[in-house]
Amino acid sequence: MRSLGYSGELHLRTLAIMHNYVLILLYCNARNLAVCPQGGNTGLVGGSVPVFDEIILSTALLNQVIAFDNISGILTCQAGCVLQHLSEFLEERDFIMPLDLGSKGSCHIGGNVSTNAGGLRLLRYGSLRGTVLGIEAVLADGKVLNCLASLRKDNTGYDVKQLFIGSEGTLGVITAVSVLCPRKPGSVNVAFLGCSSFQNLLKTFHTCRGTLGEILSAFEFLDASCMSLLETHLKLTNPISENPFYIVIETAGSNSAHDEEKLHNFLDKVMTSSLVTDGTVATEETKIKALWSLRERVTEALRHDGYTYKYDISLPVEKIYDLVSDTREHLGRRAKNVVGYGHVGDGNLHLNITSPSEDAGLLAAIEPYVYEWAARYRGSISAEHGLGLKKRNFIHYSKEPNAVALMGDLKAMLDPKGILNPYKTLPDDARS
Amino acid sequence: MRSLGYSGELHLRTLAIMHNYVLILLYCNARNLAVCPQGGNTGLVGGSVPVFDEIILSTALLNQVIAFDNISGILTCQAGCVLQHLSEFLEERDFIMPLDLGSKGSCHIGGNVSTNAGGLRLLRYGSLRGTVLGIEAVLADGKVLNCLASLRKDNTGYDVKQLFIGSEGTLGVITAVSVLCPRKPGSVNVAFLGCSSFQNLLKTFHTCRGTLGEILSAFEFLDASCMSLLETHLKLTNPISENPFYIVIETAGSNSAHDEEKLHNFLDKVMTSSLVTDGTVATEETKIKALWSLRERVTEALRHDGYTYKYDISLPVEKIYDLVSDTREHLGRRAKNVVGYGHVGDGNLHLNITSPSEDAGLLAAIEPYVYEWAARYRGSISAEHGLGLKKRNFIHYSKEPNAVALMGDLKAMLDPKGILNPYKTLPDDARS
Repeated sequence: MRSLGYSGELHLRTLAIMHNYVLILLYCNARNLAVCPQGGNTGLVGGSVPVFDEIILSTALLNQVIAFDNISGILTCQAGCVLQHLSEFLEERDFIMPLDLGSKGSCHIGGNVSTNAGGLRLLRYGSLRGTVLGIEAVLADGKVLNCLASLRKDNTGYDVKQLFIGSEGTLGVITAVSVLCPRKPGSVNVAFLGCSSFQNLLKTFHTCRGTLGEILSAFEFLDASCMSLLETHLKLTNPISENPFYIVIETAGSNSAHDEEKLHNFLDKVMTSSLVTDGTVATEETKIKALWSLRERVTEALRHDGYTYKYDISLPVEKIYDLVSDTREHLGRRAKNVVGYGHVGDGNLHLNITSPSEDAGLLAAIEPYVYEWAARYRGSISAEHGLGLKKRNFIHYSKEPNAVALMGDLKAMLDPKGILNPYKTLPDDARS
Repeated sequence: MRSLGYSGELHLRTLAIMHNYVLILLYCNARNLAVCPQGGNTGLVGGSVPVFDEIILSTALLNQVIAFDNISGILTCQAGCVLQHLSEFLEERDFIMPLDLGSKGSCHIGGNVSTNAGGLRLLRYGSLRGTVLGIEAVLADGKVLNCLASLRKDNTGYDVKQLFIGSEGTLGVITAVSVLCPRKPGSVNVAFLGCSSFQNLLKTFHTCRGTLGEILSAFEFLDASCMSLLETHLKLTNPISENPFYIVIETAGSNSAHDEEKLHNFLDKVMTSSLVTDGTVATEETKIKALWSLRERVTEALRHDGYTYKYDISLPVEKIYDLVSDTREHLGRRAKNVVGYGHVGDGNLHLNITSPSEDAGLLAAIEPYVYEWAARYRGSISAEHGLGLKKRNFIHYSKEPNAVALMGDLKAMLDPKGILNPYKTLPDDARS
């Protein structure tokens, strides 16, 4: 990957690709041909997968860094850059990406922005709605919208780029983005802890926010069922004693002595008050990676366990595990495994249910049960995965009719023929 | 101010006010009567001031806190709450608002969100696009859009609430918001420093980001002309020796010993390398307020100096003071004073030019000179103030035609009769 600025060879190559994008969309729009924009194709709700006869428009060739400003930390790059490549590019320059996901090795930044991906660093650095500063997109009619500013603040009229964040390619195809990137922290520590109850886990979270304060960069959890899948299918070893719940805490700060003292104070508090029963700490990179993999590889372990029904729910944080317990009880022996993990700091639960094979009866027992449960506590039925193909008709559990109608109006305005990623995001009854 | 939740008396009162809002908008829309939504009326670009015969729709009666969750830090409140009241409400509960402005004593949170206000804490807590989690708004046709979710993450379809952030009341009237609030820092320090050149100020900023890291919460500057206005008109005293530039640095952290050590290391570095020539530090609240007032009261001092032409420009940070120097040279003796201050950390300059009275000749020398200068470096002609009445026709210096056209389409979709805050935000040529 090169950092050339839009000049010379890169400029010519980009112009040629953008020219093709425009021609393709002009052609498809004129002939009512459907287009499915696709990045790394790592989404979990089928947002980047064609359904019938859509033409796949891949961003894979748009894989260049356009510019990086090491004073402001603003990165401008093409949509097809792989997240991990961007992370490596930045780390060499003492910066990091404001987001990090399990699928970083193949997901594209354009897809991350199109789906408003959350991930492991949201607790610290906030959502892409704040860190994405600029977007270039090709619209359904072939017009290129260049909002690729690289300024922290710009209040000149409506922030139209927000329309393309999280709309899953249904309003335009993102071709480049600019992102505000934080400094690489001088010191990173990871603690892997065991808790005897979810109540204790929540109290640990509360203590953690008070004691670790501004250096807390992640507070993640997995339950004992997840650990058992990691052991069974991936042969990973639990580094501590068996517990009903496990926590991954990451600190990221500028002064290692201060950070270690804060972490020590925190661990002292939660150990002496028995909120945490056991734990291990890593400061060295390979051990940090090993601890993180216990959280990050749960998805992979689930794939080995059978057909997986996946739910990505936002709830008030004190409710997140009740949904797992209730679902487990509700499904009884119909499910192979019911597991919960996710981002405690964001109130975001990943509820997963496995079965030896696809099972219509099991699905009927899960849906709408899970959605109704989430709606009862004013939760969201999609915290960070998006609606894509799979969840779009459940939107009404989380969004009121006037807001869904407004989505339909926006779609009709920007893509009147409905050629962009049809059958995605919008429910059937929002189509105009 | 009470924290009741939407129940009992508050519920009835709110229903009555919302009912009136809906009736007023239905009536006005049917009869093509223009409406000017108004909060605290503290904006600097005339966005909340009626121009001809608009009916003012005030949010002043919607002044109640609806709910506050002290686990997640999510505040839900009505649009007419005064920012300072919300700050006081939260500080009693060990939280703070993610934004702070000089006009906090009278501005309303609804107006802050409608204008996407920036202010003194943006460097640390990011923009309202990330921290505002929910919005309730009344649309031009009287429909109520309830997107008042209080979840950190929600990817169920388009994030339609973003349309109302920063659109200055031209697409709907915000009636309530939910905001993610940070914990109140356990320790706050403020340093007031003097620099002999803007180049040294920039180097100080670079050192500061490295040394203070995650506890840096503000890096603001004012020039010697600002200081002289503070002394002349407000009788404030410069607490340090005379310098061409002054910096206000704030740290906010969870551990006072760690924070003071970081600050000490930083001051040691910049003093021994002579980047900073003189300085004073405050840890005690009244002294902190006194140091902050040197930055916050510049606007007030300018009002006493005469008629003020105000510009709020985003630029690459290394360029921000060149605009002041060039403008000063360009205007020569036509201007009474040309001063610069603002948010270094955000690349946001407030350029102000005073004159004994309104002066068409002077204005002609300033505009479009300043806008052209900003456009040359791909800056923004409105970083945080918005376009309102005064800047809307200069939008083309910062936004490309396709984006402006899209703004016009959005306006036509949501307010086809153009009754909401006419003559604001959109340029004359974007009207449909």
